[in-house]
Amino acid sequence: MRHGESTWNKLNVFTGWTDVQLSETGVEEAKKGARLLKENGFDFKMAFTSYLTRAIKTLWIVLEEMDLMYIPEVKSWRLNEKHYGELQGLNKAETATKYGDEQVLLWRRSFDVPPQPMAVTDSRSPHNDKRYKDVDRSLLPLTESLKEVIERMMPYWESDIRPGLEKHGEILVAAHGNSLRALVMHLKGMSEEEILAFNIPTAVPYVFEFDDNLVLQKDYFLGDPEEIKKLMEAVANQGKKK
Amino acid sequence: MRHGESTWNKLNVFTGWTDVQLSETGVEEAKKGARLLKENGFDFKMAFTSYLTRAIKTLWIVLEEMDLMYIPEVKSWRLNEKHYGELQGLNKAETATKYGDEQVLLWRRSFDVPPQPMAVTDSRSPHNDKRYKDVDRSLLPLTESLKEVIERMMPYWESDIRPGLEKHGEILVAAHGNSLRALVMHLKGMSEEEILAFNIPTAVPYVFEFDDNLVLQKDYFLGDPEEIKKLMEAVANQGKKK
Repeated sequence: MRHGESTWNKLNVFTGWTDVQLSETGVEEAKKGARLLKENGFDFKMAFTSYLTRAIKTLWIVLEEMDLMYIPEVKSWRLNEKHYGELQGLNKAETATKYGDEQVLLWRRSFDVPPQPMAVTDSRSPHNDKRYKDVDRSLLPLTESLKEVIERMMPYWESDIRPGLEKHGEILVAAHGNSLRALVMHLKGMSEEEILAFNIPTAVPYVFEFDDNLVLQKDYFLGDPEEIKKLMEAVANQGKKK
Repeated sequence: MRHGESTWNKLNVFTGWTDVQLSETGVEEAKKGARLLKENGFDFKMAFTSYLTRAIKTLWIVLEEMDLMYIPEVKSWRLNEKHYGELQGLNKAETATKYGDEQVLLWRRSFDVPPQPMAVTDSRSPHNDKRYKDVDRSLLPLTESLKEVIERMMPYWESDIRPGLEKHGEILVAAHGNSLRALVMHLKGMSEEEILAFNIPTAVPYVFEFDDNLVLQKDYFLGDPEEIKKLMEAVANQGKKK
């Protein structure tokens, strides 16, 4: 599940590793997602999330609504959103007016072109954030392309998420648009073009079912298909001029 | 930190392993405790809690208020409240009227006399609760004395909490009146009589400071001493006739 709407999604600002809160809408979205999961009989045995408040809060809302607060939760920076470098904090529509839709789409959606990096001395850099103090400095990004998100995300799938799935059978991952794209691309064997065109709606449960050998059997969003389509389009349109 | 007031604390009912919610007062108590910790500069690196919602929710409120949602949390049934056997669900004042203050105080506060056990077939028994399905059946209690709480709690101190403290330096344990008593008795070298007379107030941060060799240097409650005294007396008086 991608986290619910954040205060910065709402302002249409590049967020990345900035640690913003869920908006009130985001809280409601997470509760709605949780109710869908409950109604459909899901019973998670373990959960994974990022180091960012909006994903953790989404997870906590879901676990509370599903009466599953006792299951093990594991947090990792590898599930964080893509780092948007110097774009973090800038309004997407303003950036589009300044640089043009095409450049912004390239920064947001190109596979291997990262935005300008943040200075390592920037007070907002992960190097200056106590939550990453135990992470090897050389792994901490100052900007990322989707390619680089995949490169730091997939080792975590192999080392932790996949073993958790094998052990527990039914797990929940609460994370971000681009860290989940990395996972979806891998699980569905998508091409670079396919994943770039694929938009994950906020707080809609996205279900992956596997056989005993962990071969993907089917995947689907829970909820009303028309509504989900609109939510996916809304994500796709975020980077365009207003 | 002991969890905030629960809906059953409020009803003065023996709770034990029954998974009740925090009351509104309990939520406010937890927020207040969190603010005290924040104001006093605490910066936890890891947190431990039980499998019970009221302790987990207390922890989540504290982590959210302190902006520490990203720290690792570990949950264990060994931090659960004392199992009150057949007394679970019975009103404390009614039980005192029926059996006398003395018998109730013996059940609540004797060191090694457990209440009547719950039937293993009882739908409320831990053996029939999915959250304990991975716990060795022979370890799951159907009733407990404080002595038995200590016997299942202390191995967890040795295996997980103490190593967490050694590794991270500053940790938070959000748990229950009796599982915390086990810890306090050990850390302060209290006698059976002393721990039986010691009442831990709800959601008041109880600080233990150690030297580098993990020798206890001092321990104290955070907050207004008069208020804390009243809270401790309120806990002590719960088992008496109204």
